[in-house]
Amino acid sequence: MNSTQSFQQSFEATIDAIMPTSNVLGPTVVENMTKFPDLSNITIEAFTMDTNVSYDIPVTNGTHTNSTGFRGGGVVLGSTKDFGNDASWVLTSTFIIFTMQSGFGLLESGAVSMKNEANIMVKNVVDVVLGGFTYWLFGYSLSFGESEWTNPFCGWGNFAINPSEEDMGEIYTTFFFQLSFATTATTIVSGAVAERFNFVAYVLFSAVNTVVYCVPAGWLWGNHGFLYKLGVIDIAGSCGVHLCGGASALVASRMVGPRIGRYDNGEDPLPMGCPTNAILGMFMLWWGWLGFNCGSTFGITEEKWKYAARTAVTTLQASIGGGLAGMSISWYKNHRLEIGDVVNSVLGALVSVTAGCALFTSWEALFVGLVGGTIAVMAMPLFDKLHIDDPVGATSVHGLCGMWAMIAIGLFVKADGILKMTNGNSGLFRGGGFYLLGIQTLACLCIIVWSMISTFTILKVIDKFAVGIRMSEWEELVGADFAEHGIRRRNVGVSRAVSVLGLQHAGIDYSDIIPQGDNPCHIAVLNNLSALASRRHSTLSKAVAQVTKVPYKDQGIPALMINGQSPSSKNGDIVRSVSARSTKSTNSITPIEYPGPHHAWP
Amino acid sequence: MNSTQSFQQSFEATIDAIMPTSNVLGPTVVENMTKFPDLSNITIEAFTMDTNVSYDIPVTNGTHTNSTGFRGGGVVLGSTKDFGNDASWVLTSTFIIFTMQSGFGLLESGAVSMKNEANIMVKNVVDVVLGGFTYWLFGYSLSFGESEWTNPFCGWGNFAINPSEEDMGEIYTTFFFQLSFATTATTIVSGAVAERFNFVAYVLFSAVNTVVYCVPAGWLWGNHGFLYKLGVIDIAGSCGVHLCGGASALVASRMVGPRIGRYDNGEDPLPMGCPTNAILGMFMLWWGWLGFNCGSTFGITEEKWKYAARTAVTTLQASIGGGLAGMSISWYKNHRLEIGDVVNSVLGALVSVTAGCALFTSWEALFVGLVGGTIAVMAMPLFDKLHIDDPVGATSVHGLCGMWAMIAIGLFVKADGILKMTNGNSGLFRGGGFYLLGIQTLACLCIIVWSMISTFTILKVIDKFAVGIRMSEWEELVGADFAEHGIRRRNVGVSRAVSVLGLQHAGIDYSDIIPQGDNPCHIAVLNNLSALASRRHSTLSKAVAQVTKVPYKDQGIPALMINGQSPSSKNGDIVRSVSARSTKSTNSITPIEYPGPHHAWP
Amino acid sequence: MNSTQSFQQSFEATIDAIMPTSNVLGPTVVENMTKFPDLSNITIEAFTMDTNVSYDIPVTNGTHTNSTGFRGGGVVLGSTKDFGNDASWVLTSTFIIFTMQSGFGLLESGAVSMKNEANIMVKNVVDVVLGGFTYWLFGYSLSFGESEWTNPFCGWGNFAINPSEEDMGEIYTTFFFQLSFATTATTIVSGAVAERFNFVAYVLFSAVNTVVYCVPAGWLWGNHGFLYKLGVIDIAGSCGVHLCGGASALVASRMVGPRIGRYDNGEDPLPMGCPTNAILGMFMLWWGWLGFNCGSTFGITEEKWKYAARTAVTTLQASIGGGLAGMSISWYKNHRLEIGDVVNSVLGALVSVTAGCALFTSWEALFVGLVGGTIAVMAMPLFDKLHIDDPVGATSVHGLCGMWAMIAIGLFVKADGILKMTNGNSGLFRGGGFYLLGIQTLACLCIIVWSMISTFTILKVIDKFAVGIRMSEWEELVGADFAEHGIRRRNVGVSRAVSVLGLQHAGIDYSDIIPQGDNPCHIAVLNNLSALASRRHSTLSKAVAQVTKVPYKDQGIPALMINGQSPSSKNGDIVRSVSARSTKSTNSITPIEYPGPHHAWP
Repeated sequence: MNSTQSFQQSFEATIDAIMPTSNVLGPTVVENMTKFPDLSNITIEAFTMDTNVSYDIPVTNGTHTNSTGFRGGGVVLGSTKDFGNDASWVLTSTFIIFTMQSGFGLLESGAVSMKNEANIMVKNVVDVVLGGFTYWLFGYSLSFGESEWTNPFCGWGNFAINPSEEDMGEIYTTFFFQLSFATTATTIVSGAVAERFNFVAYVLFSAVNTVVYCVPAGWLWGNHGFLYKLGVIDIAGSCGVHLCGGASALVASRMVGPRIGRYDNGEDPLPMGCPTNAILGMFMLWWGWLGFNCGSTFGITEEKWKYAARTAVTTLQASIGGGLAGMSISWYKNHRLEIGDVVNSVLGALVSVTAGCALFTSWEALFVGLVGGTIAVMAMPLFDKLHIDDPVGATSVHGLCGMWAMIAIGLFVKADGILKMTNGNSGLFRGGGFYLLGIQTLACLCIIVWSMISTFTILKVIDKFAVGIRMSEWEELVGADFAEHGIRRRNVGVSRAVSVLGLQHAGIDYSDIIPQGDNPCHIAVLNNLSALASRRHSTLSKAVAQVTKVPYKDQGIPALMINGQSPSSKNGDIVRSVSARSTKSTNSITPIEYPGPHHAWP
Repeated sequence: MNSTQSFQQSFEATIDAIMPTSNVLGPTVVENMTKFPDLSNITIEAFTMDTNVSYDIPVTNGTHTNSTGFRGGGVVLGSTKDFGNDASWVLTSTFIIFTMQSGFGLLESGAVSMKNEANIMVKNVVDVVLGGFTYWLFGYSLSFGESEWTNPFCGWGNFAINPSEEDMGEIYTTFFFQLSFATTATTIVSGAVAERFNFVAYVLFSAVNTVVYCVPAGWLWGNHGFLYKLGVIDIAGSCGVHLCGGASALVASRMVGPRIGRYDNGEDPLPMGCPTNAILGMFMLWWGWLGFNCGSTFGITEEKWKYAARTAVTTLQASIGGGLAGMSISWYKNHRLEIGDVVNSVLGALVSVTAGCALFTSWEALFVGLVGGTIAVMAMPLFDKLHIDDPVGATSVHGLCGMWAMIAIGLFVKADGILKMTNGNSGLFRGGGFYLLGIQTLACLCIIVWSMISTFTILKVIDKFAVGIRMSEWEELVGADFAEHGIRRRNVGVSRAVSVLGLQHAGIDYSDIIPQGDNPCHIAVLNNLSALASRRHSTLSKAVAQVTKVPYKDQGIPALMINGQSPSSKNGDIVRSVSARSTKSTNSITPIEYPGPHHAWP
Repeated sequence: MNSTQSFQQSFEATIDAIMPTSNVLGPTVVENMTKFPDLSNITIEAFTMDTNVSYDIPVTNGTHTNSTGFRGGGVVLGSTKDFGNDASWVLTSTFIIFTMQSGFGLLESGAVSMKNEANIMVKNVVDVVLGGFTYWLFGYSLSFGESEWTNPFCGWGNFAINPSEEDMGEIYTTFFFQLSFATTATTIVSGAVAERFNFVAYVLFSAVNTVVYCVPAGWLWGNHGFLYKLGVIDIAGSCGVHLCGGASALVASRMVGPRIGRYDNGEDPLPMGCPTNAILGMFMLWWGWLGFNCGSTFGITEEKWKYAARTAVTTLQASIGGGLAGMSISWYKNHRLEIGDVVNSVLGALVSVTAGCALFTSWEALFVGLVGGTIAVMAMPLFDKLHIDDPVGATSVHGLCGMWAMIAIGLFVKADGILKMTNGNSGLFRGGGFYLLGIQTLACLCIIVWSMISTFTILKVIDKFAVGIRMSEWEELVGADFAEHGIRRRNVGVSRAVSVLGLQHAGIDYSDIIPQGDNPCHIAVLNNLSALASRRHSTLSKAVAQVTKVPYKDQGIPALMINGQSPSSKNGDIVRSVSARSTKSTNSITPIEYPGPHHAWP
């Protein structure tokens, strides 16, 4: 029984005790005294019942939550009375979770070759935009819809969610939180198919992928879910988010095939495009993960804050264990720390602790992370041996570690006493027998089978009826940044590829593609000046001296007036020369054209 | 009436009901019974009044807030009783908002040519430092000062804010939150004038720009404000922050003129310096915006959390709508996704939802964002047609979308029931007639006129009396990173520009400007070694063998001792060779000088 | 006395007042009436005691906190009754604090030469992994352990912390918060020894460094600490974290010596590798610092939120003051803004305000930051004059400013009235005499002596018995990214260094080191195509036409099929050519090998 009700009961009991005075005070007084205000939303922690007094007053339910309860990714935590503070916690956590999208983007962008780095960031934008749109439209319904059509396999109802003012608090908080889970699941796939998945096909997949995530999310966390009813434990989504995403990633990367030439020179990983960004991305994921796991208590009031605090520590402990494992293995193998190993061991450990984050002890979390980090780092080369090309190791990090996360619960978790998140079940090594382990394993199998089949089906349909899921070869060779977004970096092989392949693509005009980071207008002006100097057999000084300032509105080539003043002149003023000079010679300068993108700039 | 007061009244009514017992219990008892403790700060949600009892007890006001109320950027939400939890929400949101400064910096930095990318980051630092300083000194006063001099046009008083210990909670929380709004408004301009605005002039402008923002902020949100009194709705600053900033940006970019050569090769956007950073910056703004809008409920207790939750979802929904619009348009126009279109459509949508973020339904937010994204993407080329050079599209994204945000409220918003944030007004399509639409339009006009005139005046004064607002041409051609901060990047045209223009600037010594990222000391040592090898007709091995370790304190050229040990040697120890060798040959090596910045390094 | 107890007393007093009715109501009633529920956990702010009634009821202690209290980095704030909301604040702040690790990483990575930028990010990962591990294992114990062995110099007990379910809330929240402090302290050193500290030695140091931080943290903040007992004030760790880290940094950078050739060309700072990243890192630290300082109220309930709000403003004010100072000085010296000066002045100011962040007025904070920024910027060249090579200025920024932070408290702080964080002491200029100033100075001296001696000892032991703390020369010259992680960037001198030094290292096979960002497989395919075209005296078109698509599983060189379709074709579908073509000519193409890393790629 909840403490607020206790308070009310206790008070009413006190009033009851005075009841005998009714013959003294008169019936009206007594009647008013019993009309004690509804205190169902006052928060009182750790209330001590007076057990000497017996109460018969019926307990009234709170009015703020529906009977089925709102929930985070994980376990339903009973009805909530003080949702303002809980909402503060959940919303803040979700802000932090949204930083993970940039983390995934940066990590993937840094891990692939430079000529694809912007494209993969755009894919992460697409994941939020299209994934978010479809989650709102039907995803939330498939997971948590509560119409009469809802069945153990799939939710239904509440499409394009749009609650009334009275209900919007709980519904929108829940939706916002769940949405952050959904977009994460999609993003996992983007890394596995990087550098060769057709962008248009990816956009279609990103939209439909919501189905792949949302149906099993309902199994795990919806009131209708058959796994939920069996008592599965997946607090922050190791199974629902990561294993689901990892299994999809495996299928997708197998279907799309390895990058061109990937295994020609052995199975070692290709060099990262920007290791610094990859590590920065990992850091963002690390901090975002704290929000992800801690927020999954889906509240902070009553005793939930204790679980949130435990989650913070177990999450960090696991990542520490994973990092220790990954760095040790990497050092043992190569006598140097491979960036990829460091990053993936930490992330694998984070995945591993996510399912049971609020339940493990600090020791268990360390161990779970250690094993998770080991799995992540050891499994990557095995996939490469099978020539399944997964540039960021999504299958190992999210898939295998997600499985380990679920199994670990079945082995180690001890039934918790306060919130009963395990429904009283314990793991195998904690005297709980095989029940919990069985359920957790079953959940893994169900999610794997579902994710693989549904991903396969969706990709086959896209590939057959909409657009080939594989980039054309020329696009892959010039890189998606150039092919999809018209970005041409220098020194990373894009220009080379364009010059080799360019003639094959008569339909494309490359002349408007300027190397990234240049200001072609400035370069043209500088060419002008150089040419002037050489053509007239004069020094550059003379050439420049002739050039006169053209007003900004003028559409002619802005010529140059050098005022000879040093930017570090003592008076601290870099004055713009506004004095009028003769402008007659301006038109006599033949502009030197921008030489076009095929020419090398200095 | 607020629930706490209800509780007190109800209790006292209960006591009142016992009053007739005074003749039984005696007067002292009754007197003590009525001395019920002041419960004005207990939080009770959703209190059910007992309507059968009539109360005459006067309602006492809370003591924590002054009568005028503290507020976020937006609407005053009545007196707050549980400010501790509210402060937790507001402060946390503001932490998140401060990440937007880095987001703006990265976005702008990634969008311009590489030779200006660091300069624009510094401008964002300046915005916080100088903008923050002047906001503290007089900005807050102009917006929310409450001295007798305050009038409907402008606040006054509370300069250099420094509250007493008793008041500091509310005042500092409010100030901190408002400050984050103010620095954002200034930052908007920095993108529009990127790559050619004189840095010193920008510093001056950044300091004074506070006035441009703070005066209309008072109109919208101060108790004295004439727009506030009319019932304008601008919850998180579409008008006060974004339209104000966008209108300033338009004037500033028009006054400073386009970049040199900007429209010589047509009106297509110039290539971005670093698209990856631009997208990362957008992500940071995206997550920061969640804090920005949600925090603008300026509290989480009582019923505010419901609005905060709605805000989170509408903000995301709008960005989804904007992203859908922007990506579709970009694909339709170019058959590829332009990074600039993706970024600006999402940001434009976020601006569009900001004014009414806590009021829209999820459908409306989607639509508002869709229109906003369309405006942002479609309007940018129009400004370029007018040869108004706005490298990041600030005028479209913040200015036009800010206007749309205000109009959308006048069209769609339905009066909310709980907090009465609309003061009971509804939009045109919700049966509210033209009143709200009129007010919203009026607010737009007032802010546009004010921002344009004040920005124009300030820039004219700076240009005339302090320092030209335009960079000198040579600075623009070599780039602000080099000219203002002495950074010379390679491969982005800086060296070229220096070599063409360098002779014109006899006053500057370039020899201390080393290409970015090099370690010139190492390069000099390597040159030494190479030279030794060739000069003596010996192999490099021999040359290196002669070189001996010089103690670190030695100021001579640290020579080199190669210990021949592999970094991946099996024992895992990369021992530093500390054995003493003959040092006599050290001095016989003629150091090869650092060749100076005009020479190419390998 | 705390307000909850007041409420209970007041209620019981009311009941007491009715006591005389016992002769009317009978003894049972009275007995029940006095059994009022324990309300010790209800939160009531600003309770007004009824002073006319005298109470004799004994006050019961809350049960949620132990008598010694849990605490943040700073001052113990008394027992906490509403830890749920406090925990929400502390946990959220700590999420924000963890973003500082990426901030430090990026700042350091951007400040050193490019060939070391990834290595320094990895060092920051190591700091979390190993620093976190040892903090859990024994660090927390040394600071806050409470066994019988605890003495004024050092805590003991609670190793490998693993609390029971009942206690986990407070303990884990505290541990999580303190851990974020500990990893920060270690990270400070990594910047100071950048570019030449042996990576393995750093890993060892990072693990043991926990001792350097944790022992004095106990002096300052543990119940056993002698400085704590004297009343030292260091709220968020200027002394415990920054001065400690800065003093370690000084010793470490002196011991490891300057980078090779550092002072050959004078004492000016070397060019930054990536100024944009350095500024982004500073922004991350800036926002993280808000969480760091504000979270150090270690709660938000009761009156703590007022201090948190003040902290937010003073932290910003100080950084503003510091920025003003740094930018002015930089301009005065060089007539341009040096990025390093801007960054370090802001950070120095943040360090300076950290110790007294919750106590200063806004004016004082501005002044403290101004002085701090000045110290940071002015002191850096002095260390360079002494040839102590500290690439990021850690000694100035963290060490000297940390000292100033402590002294400033002794000078300016006025005893606060609400939480008594100063224990009633005031600074010298506030009439408090020399006591506080003396304690603060004593604390600085103790921490400096301890940090320097312990760091020296640890490094000596590592250098002597484990692995030399200095990189070998060849590693330093090729850069740690290459030497430790096998990353070879182009255009930053790595290839040059490898080619000069490579022959000396017969044991290393460079052929598997591919320039960063390339996709060598793609390049090999392009080489293939070019060669085909030239060898057969045919146009490239013909050569390409012969090449046929190879199924993805094929391990041969994936050849190329160009389908001639433009990516921007009108129908929007970039279809992958799946038509079967003759594959017989595939094997006739002699693959052109990847030329190896010593060759220049286009």
